[in-house]
Amino acid sequence: MNPQVGLVLGSDSDLPLMKDAVKLLEKFGIAYEITISSAHRAPDKTATYARTAEARGLKVIIAAAGLAAHLPGVIAAHTILPVIGVPVKSGALDGVDALYSIAQMPPGIPVASVAINGAKNAAILAAQILATTDEALAAKLRQFKEDLAREVESKDARLKELGVEGYLDNK
Amino acid sequence: MNPQVGLVLGSDSDLPLMKDAVKLLEKFGIAYEITISSAHRAPDKTATYARTAEARGLKVIIAAAGLAAHLPGVIAAHTILPVIGVPVKSGALDGVDALYSIAQMPPGIPVASVAINGAKNAAILAAQILATTDEALAAKLRQFKEDLAREVESKDARLKELGVEGYLDNK
Amino acid sequence: MNPQVGLVLGSDSDLPLMKDAVKLLEKFGIAYEITISSAHRAPDKTATYARTAEARGLKVIIAAAGLAAHLPGVIAAHTILPVIGVPVKSGALDGVDALYSIAQMPPGIPVASVAINGAKNAAILAAQILATTDEALAAKLRQFKEDLAREVESKDARLKELGVEGYLDNK
Amino acid sequence: MNPQVGLVLGSDSDLPLMKDAVKLLEKFGIAYEITISSAHRAPDKTATYARTAEARGLKVIIAAAGLAAHLPGVIAAHTILPVIGVPVKSGALDGVDALYSIAQMPPGIPVASVAINGAKNAAILAAQILATTDEALAAKLRQFKEDLAREVESKDARLKELGVEGYLDNK
Amino acid sequence: MNPQVGLVLGSDSDLPLMKDAVKLLEKFGIAYEITISSAHRAPDKTATYARTAEARGLKVIIAAAGLAAHLPGVIAAHTILPVIGVPVKSGALDGVDALYSIAQMPPGIPVASVAINGAKNAAILAAQILATTDEALAAKLRQFKEDLAREVESKDARLKELGVEGYLDNK
Amino acid sequence: MNPQVGLVLGSDSDLPLMKDAVKLLEKFGIAYEITISSAHRAPDKTATYARTAEARGLKVIIAAAGLAAHLPGVIAAHTILPVIGVPVKSGALDGVDALYSIAQMPPGIPVASVAINGAKNAAILAAQILATTDEALAAKLRQFKEDLAREVESKDARLKELGVEGYLDNK
Amino acid sequence: MNPQVGLVLGSDSDLPLMKDAVKLLEKFGIAYEITISSAHRAPDKTATYARTAEARGLKVIIAAAGLAAHLPGVIAAHTILPVIGVPVKSGALDGVDALYSIAQMPPGIPVASVAINGAKNAAILAAQILATTDEALAAKLRQFKEDLAREVESKDARLKELGVEGYLDNK
Amino acid sequence: MNPQVGLVLGSDSDLPLMKDAVKLLEKFGIAYEITISSAHRAPDKTATYARTAEARGLKVIIAAAGLAAHLPGVIAAHTILPVIGVPVKSGALDGVDALYSIAQMPPGIPVASVAINGAKNAAILAAQILATTDEALAAKLRQFKEDLAREVESKDARLKELGVEGYLDNK
Repeated sequence: MNPQVGLVLGSDSDLPLMKDAVKLLEKFGIAYEITISSAHRAPDKTATYARTAEARGLKVIIAAAGLAAHLPGVIAAHTILPVIGVPVKSGALDGVDALYSIAQMPPGIPVASVAINGAKNAAILAAQILATTDEALAAKLRQFKEDLAREVESKDARLKELGVEGYLDNK
Repeated sequence: MNPQVGLVLGSDSDLPLMKDAVKLLEKFGIAYEITISSAHRAPDKTATYARTAEARGLKVIIAAAGLAAHLPGVIAAHTILPVIGVPVKSGALDGVDALYSIAQMPPGIPVASVAINGAKNAAILAAQILATTDEALAAKLRQFKEDLAREVESKDARLKELGVEGYLDNK
Repeated sequence: MNPQVGLVLGSDSDLPLMKDAVKLLEKFGIAYEITISSAHRAPDKTATYARTAEARGLKVIIAAAGLAAHLPGVIAAHTILPVIGVPVKSGALDGVDALYSIAQMPPGIPVASVAINGAKNAAILAAQILATTDEALAAKLRQFKEDLAREVESKDARLKELGVEGYLDNK
Repeated sequence: MNPQVGLVLGSDSDLPLMKDAVKLLEKFGIAYEITISSAHRAPDKTATYARTAEARGLKVIIAAAGLAAHLPGVIAAHTILPVIGVPVKSGALDGVDALYSIAQMPPGIPVASVAINGAKNAAILAAQILATTDEALAAKLRQFKEDLAREVESKDARLKELGVEGYLDNK
Repeated sequence: MNPQVGLVLGSDSDLPLMKDAVKLLEKFGIAYEITISSAHRAPDKTATYARTAEARGLKVIIAAAGLAAHLPGVIAAHTILPVIGVPVKSGALDGVDALYSIAQMPPGIPVASVAINGAKNAAILAAQILATTDEALAAKLRQFKEDLAREVESKDARLKELGVEGYLDNK
Repeated sequence: MNPQVGLVLGSDSDLPLMKDAVKLLEKFGIAYEITISSAHRAPDKTATYARTAEARGLKVIIAAAGLAAHLPGVIAAHTILPVIGVPVKSGALDGVDALYSIAQMPPGIPVASVAINGAKNAAILAAQILATTDEALAAKLRQFKEDLAREVESKDARLKELGVEGYLDNK
Repeated sequence: MNPQVGLVLGSDSDLPLMKDAVKLLEKFGIAYEITISSAHRAPDKTATYARTAEARGLKVIIAAAGLAAHLPGVIAAHTILPVIGVPVKSGALDGVDALYSIAQMPPGIPVASVAINGAKNAAILAAQILATTDEALAAKLRQFKEDLAREVESKDARLKELGVEGYLDNK
Repeated sequence: MNPQVGLVLGSDSDLPLMKDAVKLLEKFGIAYEITISSAHRAPDKTATYARTAEARGLKVIIAAAGLAAHLPGVIAAHTILPVIGVPVKSGALDGVDALYSIAQMPPGIPVASVAINGAKNAAILAAQILATTDEALAAKLRQFKEDLAREVESKDARLKELGVEGYLDNK
């Protein structure tokens, strides 16, 4: 199956974080490709990647970057595909720089920012975008949402059963 | 034609800002509906809106809110549709509070944050999401992107022709 | 005895922090209930909880949440009980996001914010609210306040007796 | 009727802001007193005010202050009444300093912080605290909450009737 | 004479600000070219500009941009010329976003950041770089520095002559 | 009488602000001198000023500066006199840069920072320092403090007499 | 000898930090007293301390506090002695809250803020204040300043002798 | 060979960081000198260093400093050589103070700021400045840039070969 989601990492140091996104995409059965590129150190590779993304069949791109974090914006400059940016916590500013750099895109070229280190939500958002025209995937997302609620419910039941001390002791 | 994009405003004071999004959706020929609701003052209306959005045929929701800005997150809690949040500049913190409240969603329930007051980009992002399965719309987005580049080119040509002083005098 | 204070946690990871609040409530002899819910992952449970709180006899609600921290505001949207919000230190922004999200509520729906990780003060504030019409509890709070002053006094006396080095060595 | 709520202003420049709180207290039929004091320029007056507040019959204190904004904390140091702090937007930091100074109280002495310039919410929060043992007031608060929801509903209806342009033209 | 300094503006709204840089370059007798381009709306134009800059004889590039402010970093990705970035004050964050986006470049691809709206200093820095191998220009910079000191001296003398009131009245 | 306090301004644009300090020094009968210098544009003048300050009979130096605001720290590097720094609100960061630059001095060379634009408090602090060995000045400061308290008292009395509306109408 | 400097700590957890100030005062031969008090938990003790400070012969007060950090300001409200505030790094905001709370005092009641955790500089500043009328102490401060310069000189010489690697290896 | 780049460290604690810059300068074959000085503790040494830098043959100065970080600005005040400032992460503010202090220089005296702890980029920027008139060095920089791109390419190839799990396991 053709990849529908392209994951791009500004650095291989972002790989442990993005593994969370990968796992969720696999859980939802979404085909993806994963690429290390860099807006600054490999600008041509990045531009080529973005320019050819649509033709290769990608529907959504997830790009993660820290510090000045230009990667998602540079990709968005070269494609009309929706680009989700994941600001990575790194450096002295702990990702505030990356959040601003990704969220504060100028009018005309949007990037969808998730939370700092929000790799999981980037994957879910990508799934939500694909699910707008994929009923099977939408069903999986509805199930995922119900599971989240059920998990809260079961933790709450456990807390009520064990009490605060008991819950903490058995964690 | 059924609305595909739902615009939700936390307050009617956000309407002048969101008019920019409306205009762009109209320019792209995307059917939309627009609603004033509030996560805090009208929580039931908001929950009902979000829960029924998918069934009503919406594909994407754009929610704008300032200050604590819970609206996009609350809507996202009730739907699997992609939700785009527009942090509104207002109050003493000029929208940083809204940006954090919208971008920093916890794992499981994503919101796609655009820039503070980034109403235009919210509309373009919604169009990009719809265009992943609508080639006619994708063509419009490609054209829009080319127009942006052409506008830069023509301003640059004008600057080179008139010089700095001339450009500023004739603005 | 009916619970008078409802503690709500956005996640069970907030439980060690909120144990501090629980201990103080117990010290003051205030009946409480404790619940894990989530504004985002369990929105219906949260709304139901808040809507029924008054009828169940609760007088005050304490809600703790990190990151986008919508929980206290969402609860406040559904009840006229006073809601105390505890911003939890977590994620890349160390709780500034949660503080803003909890403190910057829009006009109409107040939340009482305490400090980031201020679980103890949330419990004391809840006790102060209850004490406005409970003289026995008020007496306990006056005693608690005196104890705080006395503890400062006794540490100061010890410092004066032992000197800086001695105090630090015997700590 | 004895005042139940004490409003304290660090400076008479905060009076226009606090008029919003006064109006809401009057709307709810809550007796109040209003005082200008200052933690720094009139520390004895402030301490005396706080120490005698309970005996004078006050149930809640609302204190507004800008900049270093010690007023709410200093009052809280001298009373077991719940103290609501209103950080005032003023000076170069636009109230962030006041928000931190009010919200970040150390364990033992809580202050309930509302939003920067959140005078209205301070009044509503005070009413909520009083309403925990005043059913007539609780009924008013329920009504107030319904009115908020109805106002949203009516603005939304108007928007749907007039459309974006029409709504903005007739505002 | 071949341009030695290339000025690039992310938007023509930055032109009034950059006029200050232009004036200083002219004062120092430095040949320059000025271009409107955009990392996001005109990525190919920007890449081509940067890639050909060295061959066209440029020695230094000054790039000004606001918000996500990727322009200087994107140019730096495509050239080994020193790139000076001018963060522009604009949008809700008043240029902090641009400062972070320009200053926090990752290892490998430097950008020299000046102050927010620091267009004058960008021009002086460019002149300093050129002056490292241009003694005539170095002499002008030494003179410029002396003039700055002399201007301070003469304002101070005037203040001492007129006094505070007199100085303010005759300003 | 020999000047005891030296006021140094980084720029004549700080003069209107520092007039507040001048007025208070005159009110307290403290002899002062006032100088425009600049750590960056007139470094030698600044160093000479600081190095000779003690010998000229100065006891305290007040230095005001905005932006990078190195002036107070540079003066402190050249003298053992206490240096009070006034961070000036200016530029895109509204004086936060100046506050950090003045307050965050490294161990060994202190600067006493007052609030952003805190010129009045700088003058009072200088007076307090001189008053540690000048009983007549100490008496004036005690009177000043009493006047501050009395002014609060009189505003409060007026508010109680006129009520909120009346006070605001007659302001 | 009567204490000339009063050190006040908001909490005994600040003692390790303030030991640095104590050591410097001892090095300069300045008599001091050290007290644990708290603006919030022991307000009367704090007020009494501040009100009697002048009569007890103190010339300068150093007050250290974290979080809302009202201690220095509350002391300053009760005395005309110069008060030096040390913002303590603690809690989720790492001392920014304390810095703002100490530096941003309102007009009329100054506090001299040093850096976050700047205990050493607080002691040096206190010494500088005392030295304005104590030539022997002034001589010690001049010597201290020379020693600082000499230490830099000797480290630099060592670096030049050993080279970067050698210096790091022998550190 | 005469040093072309002067590295100045505000403290020997910055040496491990600046070793990264040293290594890159050596890799590029650029002669350098390295000096410990301090704008505050050794102001005369610093001024002399800066004033004689040009005459000694230096072309670029790199100055690293934390906290108030006046070193680069003070050096820039005394020379027309381009000065690159490296804000050092240290203290409670993690280098934001240093970034602001270095980047926000007033008009007339520029400093080129790189990222917090951006020692490597400072060295590359210095090399870029020298390379504007040194073709051999320019060739090395072009090669360095290509190597950066190739390294990205090779990591990407490895990721594609090994997959996410494999890559992480073999790191």
